[in-house]
Amino acid sequence: MHAHIITIGDEILIGQIIDTNSAWMGRELNQVGIEVTEIITASDSRHSIYRSFQRAAEHADIILITGGLGPTKDDITKKVLAEYFGTDLVFNEEMWGYLEGFFEQLGRKPNESHRQQCYLPANCTTLRNKMGTAPGMWFEKNGKVFVSMPGVPYEMKYLMEHEVIPKLKTTFKTQPIVHRTISTAGVGESVLAGLVEDIETNLPDFVKLAFLPNLGKVRLRLTARGEDEAYLNQFLDQKVIEIKEKIGDLIFGYEKQTISEVIGLLCKEKGVTIGTLESCTGGRVAHDITSVSGSSAYFKGSIVAYSNDIKRKLLDVSADTLAAHGAVSKETVIEMVKGGLTTLGVDYALAVSGIAGPTGGTPDKPVGTIWVAVGNKEYIEATLVKGGKDRAKNIERTTTLSLNILRQFILKYA
Amino acid sequence: MHAHIITIGDEILIGQIIDTNSAWMGRELNQVGIEVTEIITASDSRHSIYRSFQRAAEHADIILITGGLGPTKDDITKKVLAEYFGTDLVFNEEMWGYLEGFFEQLGRKPNESHRQQCYLPANCTTLRNKMGTAPGMWFEKNGKVFVSMPGVPYEMKYLMEHEVIPKLKTTFKTQPIVHRTISTAGVGESVLAGLVEDIETNLPDFVKLAFLPNLGKVRLRLTARGEDEAYLNQFLDQKVIEIKEKIGDLIFGYEKQTISEVIGLLCKEKGVTIGTLESCTGGRVAHDITSVSGSSAYFKGSIVAYSNDIKRKLLDVSADTLAAHGAVSKETVIEMVKGGLTTLGVDYALAVSGIAGPTGGTPDKPVGTIWVAVGNKEYIEATLVKGGKDRAKNIERTTTLSLNILRQFILKYA
Repeated sequence: MHAHIITIGDEILIGQIIDTNSAWMGRELNQVGIEVTEIITASDSRHSIYRSFQRAAEHADIILITGGLGPTKDDITKKVLAEYFGTDLVFNEEMWGYLEGFFEQLGRKPNESHRQQCYLPANCTTLRNKMGTAPGMWFEKNGKVFVSMPGVPYEMKYLMEHEVIPKLKTTFKTQPIVHRTISTAGVGESVLAGLVEDIETNLPDFVKLAFLPNLGKVRLRLTARGEDEAYLNQFLDQKVIEIKEKIGDLIFGYEKQTISEVIGLLCKEKGVTIGTLESCTGGRVAHDITSVSGSSAYFKGSIVAYSNDIKRKLLDVSADTLAAHGAVSKETVIEMVKGGLTTLGVDYALAVSGIAGPTGGTPDKPVGTIWVAVGNKEYIEATLVKGGKDRAKNIERTTTLSLNILRQFILKYA
Repeated sequence: MHAHIITIGDEILIGQIIDTNSAWMGRELNQVGIEVTEIITASDSRHSIYRSFQRAAEHADIILITGGLGPTKDDITKKVLAEYFGTDLVFNEEMWGYLEGFFEQLGRKPNESHRQQCYLPANCTTLRNKMGTAPGMWFEKNGKVFVSMPGVPYEMKYLMEHEVIPKLKTTFKTQPIVHRTISTAGVGESVLAGLVEDIETNLPDFVKLAFLPNLGKVRLRLTARGEDEAYLNQFLDQKVIEIKEKIGDLIFGYEKQTISEVIGLLCKEKGVTIGTLESCTGGRVAHDITSVSGSSAYFKGSIVAYSNDIKRKLLDVSADTLAAHGAVSKETVIEMVKGGLTTLGVDYALAVSGIAGPTGGTPDKPVGTIWVAVGNKEYIEATLVKGGKDRAKNIERTTTLSLNILRQFILKYA
């Protein structure tokens, strides 16, 4: 089953926005066994859109189209679809009734531009878009399916999840395909591959294992295809158990969980509070933790001690330690943790100090030298994390690795 | 002058990575007067790549290809290029000599896979890639130009900036096109459009003004095309002065400057230090400030006071204020600034407290109620920033708006 994605919009061609929709769609389609074999971004011109429909129909079974459905003059997708299918735009009473109800709930009335959105190609089946006013449209012609959706990401995602993918599954009777994602942090792809080599080598042909690395994290994705979905699920659950036995401690979560979500669950389960003391990460770790809704239940705060003054004054790092070992040292991050536990009044504290770069390195401590410490009232552990030369990447990667160190420490001692 | 971009790689089609290269290329090409009329992502198959070359050659003058140049078996772009041009892959001695020199500097020797990278289609001109081992390749056929580059973003960008764009400009004698970008924060697109309406209405046909909004920021981009580049530059410089007269205070920077870079320059110029006190932004503002290399010269630190305990203990916010007005109030952010100036020992302090959502709102203080205060020893000013329901967007937008408030305050009082 081959799909082409057609994204319509000059704003993508001139680089004003990045097309993130196609990657998301590619991932979701792949998960149900539909392979995307081409993505085309077409301009807002009749000629460009029409040509892209013709070409996609030559090579794909499923053609998914996003964008160009708004009420402005630029948005001509509907007209070109009607022309392509040799039909007219007709007023859809049912759609209009739906919009009137939708606006009534908001205490408003639909306007003329909403009325325009109810003119749809005569041959389409509408797909209800609960996130906006432009419906999705489903067309079938010569055994091929065309689907048109708005380009607004959350509207497209709603339609894909609730309408398009379920309908594609029934229309094409796709083969069952199931997945498991295991998220790890702390070691690289090649080390992980070594640890699970036996399991990977012995996987049957209907199961694939992929390693997806990204700045401190590596996700392992198991994919199984076959006829019996219950069996596939059972088989992958067993493989996840086997992988967990090999790399247990490195796993921070499953499926779409983030490391900060996992830390949140862990803190709630253990009834502990946390805080961070950050130098080179400059608040990035605290930002990650607080990106989780409800984090105020366990995260009390952070001290971004960018200057040595603040390290001394608020975290009680001694002037002697700073003079003897420098701000980027095992000794300093350990004292930061001790001071932070008291100053923030938390059960667990994480400290980071390093040289994020691109300047500030010395022969002894090159750019990318980063110390992380984590502790509670009884124990403190320090780790040297080695980064590269890129400031932004060092900050991102250190954030992930230090959160993972905090997670492992809480698991060990709480 | 029309260009097509062809991006090669299964990892894009399955959604493992997002294609950010094309948007960057579209933007850069647009700036020199070359219009991108289509972007195609092709799979790593000979058939898909070959077909994309044929189609692009039918409709475009310039075909820019990225990806598929690595040393692994998947990477077949070179072979398909040679086939398309009816030529062979031949060993390029000059390229090999360059690689030997490149590795000698690193104290290493090139290996067999590097040797493979020196086999290039006989009809290409090589473009030196100082960021990696795979060269760019330039082909001309029937008046069309094909360029093949690695897909690694910084390698592609290096080649585009130093080789491809200069060569395209001379080959196609493109019409001069000049740009000015003015970055603003604090008011929306429609307000800005109203303020510069007179200027926009009176622009000659050879100048266009675009508004590019993004979470708290709006960039104004002026583009002029014509024959006389010096005149175009002079004309746009004059327009920038006129726009500045209308919206002076809202402008935070020009061209690619970020708001945190501008704050850095301002702090250095005025010789002042800064710090932040953050509740709902959870360290995001400090992270933005410290994303600038060298920020330790003026940024001393931040206290992320997520809990009321820390607001009281470290920032001396009174229990009475918290009880009477709540943590999200004008009174609390003002006390946070006062406490922060002392605790951090800085000249200027910025405080943020709000309800980022999606939960935690009340009828009086709905999600998106966010207070920002900024002050020095003499003055403190507080502002209510209204956000929406989305946690991540509220945090991003508040970060931009509060940094802009800090910038304006320093400009006013330092």
